[in-house]
Amino acid sequence: MNMRDFTTDHDWLSINTATIRRQQGHEVPLTRIIDQCAAHGVRAISPWRDQVAAAGLGAVARQLRALGMGLSGYCRGGFFPAVDPAGLQAALDDNRRAIDEAKALDAPCLVLVTGSLPGALNGAPAHKSLERVRAQVHDGIAASLEYARQVGMPLAIEPLHPMQAADRACINTLEQALDLCDALDPQRSGALGVALDVYHVWWDPKLRQQIARAGAERLLACHVCDWLTPTRDLLSDRGMMGDGVVELRKIRSWVEDAGFRGFSEVEIFSQSDWWQRSGDEVLATCIARHRTCV
Amino acid sequence: MNMRDFTTDHDWLSINTATIRRQQGHEVPLTRIIDQCAAHGVRAISPWRDQVAAAGLGAVARQLRALGMGLSGYCRGGFFPAVDPAGLQAALDDNRRAIDEAKALDAPCLVLVTGSLPGALNGAPAHKSLERVRAQVHDGIAASLEYARQVGMPLAIEPLHPMQAADRACINTLEQALDLCDALDPQRSGALGVALDVYHVWWDPKLRQQIARAGAERLLACHVCDWLTPTRDLLSDRGMMGDGVVELRKIRSWVEDAGFRGFSEVEIFSQSDWWQRSGDEVLATCIARHRTCV
Repeated sequence: MNMRDFTTDHDWLSINTATIRRQQGHEVPLTRIIDQCAAHGVRAISPWRDQVAAAGLGAVARQLRALGMGLSGYCRGGFFPAVDPAGLQAALDDNRRAIDEAKALDAPCLVLVTGSLPGALNGAPAHKSLERVRAQVHDGIAASLEYARQVGMPLAIEPLHPMQAADRACINTLEQALDLCDALDPQRSGALGVALDVYHVWWDPKLRQQIARAGAERLLACHVCDWLTPTRDLLSDRGMMGDGVVELRKIRSWVEDAGFRGFSEVEIFSQSDWWQRSGDEVLATCIARHRTCV
Repeated sequence: MNMRDFTTDHDWLSINTATIRRQQGHEVPLTRIIDQCAAHGVRAISPWRDQVAAAGLGAVARQLRALGMGLSGYCRGGFFPAVDPAGLQAALDDNRRAIDEAKALDAPCLVLVTGSLPGALNGAPAHKSLERVRAQVHDGIAASLEYARQVGMPLAIEPLHPMQAADRACINTLEQALDLCDALDPQRSGALGVALDVYHVWWDPKLRQQIARAGAERLLACHVCDWLTPTRDLLSDRGMMGDGVVELRKIRSWVEDAGFRGFSEVEIFSQSDWWQRSGDEVLATCIARHRTCV
């Protein structure tokens, strides 16, 4: 199958709004971020729930419609594990609200960062059982999927890098995410799939094989950035495409061979570099690198 | 199968000498480290080549014999990938020397950290092809294995955490390491196996399954420490057993079910914590945690 040509335009570039949520070190409101993206001819974004909540869901939906701008995904649901039934139920309720918001914004999918050991994100894990939290994630997605199917909002499980296995997601390989999809949606209905972020999976020796296994029905979103050498922080030291070692075009060829035809969504957390620059510089660089490196 | 009881002694504790190579912030010679281990009743160590070279191979061998102390492994061979034939040959020559040293020290195995993108460790990767370096690692181990078989020194491939895939090792899961073992030693002769470090593999959803697959013939060494939340550095922020989230006893039960009966080797790189303490404090803590947590 021929790969799409990204070298002459950025029609298939999407900006995950985390990439420019901080500009020159300062937090920037989503409405401003959306205007900046529009000014750079960006056709799609993937916003975060806290940014949408701060700006107002209705206001964001209206702004996007007025600009003719779409979503490549909505960030994010998940964080299913908890220490007690009340906590598990609260997570399900919150995921239901996330699904409703995604629907109001006409997102193609809700991205799920599954969560892992309760409390670990605050440095105080309540227990150590990956088996238990993986079972809770299975059950949490199963429950959320029922509602998501009713309203027609696909759920995209994002396998996170193993270095985030303790605190952010206990789903850490594409194979594991697809096993979960097969268990919960064996008919490959399109209601459940994966968000593939190259940052999390580029190292995986089974990546090509599992992308082929996923196929178009399961590949709901694709995120790009780069892996820097050295990497100085486990969360916020992602690189701009082309500045690291990820074979971006090769991975895109695998994804397109599997039938994916959606956006390449740029998601860069970069405390000490890109978040210190102006939004215009970051957007211009994303567009240039999308053409030359993705 | 019954697990061995580690709660009343430390007969099966080994100290990887990196754990106390720095004491109170200062580099300590290997001969002193060995004496400290002996004073704490430690029966085995796993020393590093640079430490052995500094102390003198013959002197270290004599000291160990005099103390009745054994090795649980020798650190380390590997780093096979290179940009040209001369570099590949230099790596093979170096691995041959490492095998000879391991033999002189009567090590049960030579641990292989395979290497990955040439130059990446210095922040200047020569290229980005994981496919190429993985092929070079395959070929490098195949060549080294011939000599290792002749002299009777088992090679133990250590899968490294995916966060070290760019710079230190392109073998990143136990499954991948075992696939390599099966390709190069299909007869399961004992000449080729794995060094399983919980720090690198604890997150793996296939860990239990792949440990069972490995079996006693392939499990040549087992390393312990802990995964801290948060982890502040990709290399040197390992935790003492019990201070993190790794289910050490559960993993040991899997390893012993597979037939492993060797040492639990403590390997902790800890720039800001344990390397700042006295060697005696670190050793006493390793012994106490070996009893209560491993």
